[in-house]
Amino acid sequence: MERKYAKRFEQMNPSAIREILKLANGSDITSFAGGLPSPDVFPKGRISWVAAKVLVEQGENALQYSNTEGLTELRTQILDRMNRKFGVPGLTLDNICILSGSQQGLDFVAKIFCNAGDVVFVEKPTYLAAISAFRSYEAKVVEIEMDEDGIIIEDLKKKMKKYPDAKFLYTIPDFQNPTGISMPLRRKLELMDAVKGSNLMIIEDSPYTELRYKGNRVPTLLSMDDEGRVIYLGTFSKILAPGFRIAWIIAPEDVIKKVIIAKQAADLQPNTLTQYIASEFLKVLDMEAHIESIIEVYGHRRDVMLKALEDYMPEGVSWTTPDGGLFLWLTFPKHIDSKLLLEDCIKKKVAFVPGDAFFAEDVETNHCRINFSFVDDKKLIQGVKNIAEAIKEYNH
Amino acid sequence: MERKYAKRFEQMNPSAIREILKLANGSDITSFAGGLPSPDVFPKGRISWVAAKVLVEQGENALQYSNTEGLTELRTQILDRMNRKFGVPGLTLDNICILSGSQQGLDFVAKIFCNAGDVVFVEKPTYLAAISAFRSYEAKVVEIEMDEDGIIIEDLKKKMKKYPDAKFLYTIPDFQNPTGISMPLRRKLELMDAVKGSNLMIIEDSPYTELRYKGNRVPTLLSMDDEGRVIYLGTFSKILAPGFRIAWIIAPEDVIKKVIIAKQAADLQPNTLTQYIASEFLKVLDMEAHIESIIEVYGHRRDVMLKALEDYMPEGVSWTTPDGGLFLWLTFPKHIDSKLLLEDCIKKKVAFVPGDAFFAEDVETNHCRINFSFVDDKKLIQGVKNIAEAIKEYNH
Repeated sequence: MERKYAKRFEQMNPSAIREILKLANGSDITSFAGGLPSPDVFPKGRISWVAAKVLVEQGENALQYSNTEGLTELRTQILDRMNRKFGVPGLTLDNICILSGSQQGLDFVAKIFCNAGDVVFVEKPTYLAAISAFRSYEAKVVEIEMDEDGIIIEDLKKKMKKYPDAKFLYTIPDFQNPTGISMPLRRKLELMDAVKGSNLMIIEDSPYTELRYKGNRVPTLLSMDDEGRVIYLGTFSKILAPGFRIAWIIAPEDVIKKVIIAKQAADLQPNTLTQYIASEFLKVLDMEAHIESIIEVYGHRRDVMLKALEDYMPEGVSWTTPDGGLFLWLTFPKHIDSKLLLEDCIKKKVAFVPGDAFFAEDVETNHCRINFSFVDDKKLIQGVKNIAEAIKEYNH
Repeated sequence: MERKYAKRFEQMNPSAIREILKLANGSDITSFAGGLPSPDVFPKGRISWVAAKVLVEQGENALQYSNTEGLTELRTQILDRMNRKFGVPGLTLDNICILSGSQQGLDFVAKIFCNAGDVVFVEKPTYLAAISAFRSYEAKVVEIEMDEDGIIIEDLKKKMKKYPDAKFLYTIPDFQNPTGISMPLRRKLELMDAVKGSNLMIIEDSPYTELRYKGNRVPTLLSMDDEGRVIYLGTFSKILAPGFRIAWIIAPEDVIKKVIIAKQAADLQPNTLTQYIASEFLKVLDMEAHIESIIEVYGHRRDVMLKALEDYMPEGVSWTTPDGGLFLWLTFPKHIDSKLLLEDCIKKKVAFVPGDAFFAEDVETNHCRINFSFVDDKKLIQGVKNIAEAIKEYNH
């Protein structure tokens, strides 16, 4: 029989990261490729204890169907915590829905807002699976230029003029994926000012915000919003465990209503058991102390990575210096194609993600994304050494 | 600011079941409304033990990101088990992807196959959240008539002639939701024969197949397929725990490739922890004995429900007699509107799902879906008595 797929699937390709992760899995390769938290910081023992407690005390509920928008107690805890840490008062249970990972939020905002051909703005470069999610609804993904402080406001204004009906701007303001760049307060204020009065929604993806190793906390875009413009995505993936698949979306009530309808049709509800575990963890254990311990490990690794780059990278290679998060962004001399370089590097037992996949329109081939949270000091240093060697030997 | 949603969200409404479930939650109402497994049959103790074992022995992996298509071991176990129970040899790991619940499979088949306006066929009546999933991609949902043996082949042929480009037929062949009706072998063979040589895919949704209380096992449509036509959905929700959100899709390899791309964009991967728990449960415990114990409890409740209907329902009310699953379907005299009857019933502390929501086109208002797995004998009988009373007193 002849298979007739939908149009939207003609432009969908497998994720480069996922394919590379497969390659780097279970081998002797030092992988800077993933966005994986270090297993060294998983609170395994505490999660085991909490899981046992939940199953014994509330097993009937924790194994059963539960509501689409997520457990009331967990949503309350998340709002309380966000208000305490980020100052976002006035939010109620009608402003939050639990998701099966933040990626689901990217799928939903595209599904809810985008007709085929609608324009959405993203940073250049941006998180590659956001591009896939938006394109899976046939959105036209338009790039906004960045500098070392994030989105360039003049370019945003130019694109808003060119595409006055653009649906939203997708941004990762803190420790961006893939670059590690953060918007300082001034830039965030300029951004909110630039969109004021328009119909452009802002999707603030905030998976790394709590993982700050240097400098002072900067308010979220959500906390600066007085027009019902910002949709905020948070997650437990980087601060507790990605295997839980528990994230949250915060938005104006009318948007959350649409999100709940989308979620009913997409997967009925978030995972009940891991919601209960996360909620109990927040209730009986010290999440803030746990995050401090993650910051200590990752902050140290960031320093080791930056020093190794300083020590070993040849002339002509530059990189970002992130204050937090999991990634930094390397830029090679123009003649180096990072996909070819990766082939050389894999022979030297080290992997990264070539930058190409993070561009939606105007692909640049001389970058790569480097994760510094996953492997230990020794491997970090050896990995950087090996990449530096591959660059020196580059001959394609 | 003005909110501009996508067209596809104009026809999306909140699920009736979910709204009613909220109403029936935590109150003194006897609910026949949900599709909830009974907490009496959750193997709480065994799951606690398996969860602890997994977290202690494999915590680093069980809390981490994992691959989009699901754990290799779990997929292998599911294929082995399906082959043993249903005889579907020749399937490989390239034919299966783990999902975050079967509902996600419904979302994906619509996303992968349906352009706006494309026709899909469903049974009349059908699972209401399938209608929502298909409509969320602007598919045109066309009903196929059923009799007491399921899909009427003549009507299917008629509709295939009228809509030669229809993308797929969605069917729940065993103990259907909402009617409890099953297709016997002869009807299944006729169905496969009727579609032979066409381009119509078949989506076989099979959540209840293992919960048979009477009669002999009937082969799956999947096992009868030699044209790469059938996409099969299975789940742990009814045989282990719905809170796990672990289901699977089996399909030809080219379709699974598209499913994996869809899943990457939709939520990256299924829940790692509950995949590990399900896999370990299958490995070290006796799943078949566990299912036998569920069958004992539900089979008994089905008998109690049928006897109570026999004993208390007034003239003019009829119902299906399912051989398995969770539901049966009541038909009232035409003058009774089941939504109004529900209002009366809720005053009498009993709830069901009015039939309206299960029709995609030609809505009938004198039916309701009754779940018989969730509450105990005493409540089953009292609930039926109260519905019977409400019917006798019906006065709208």
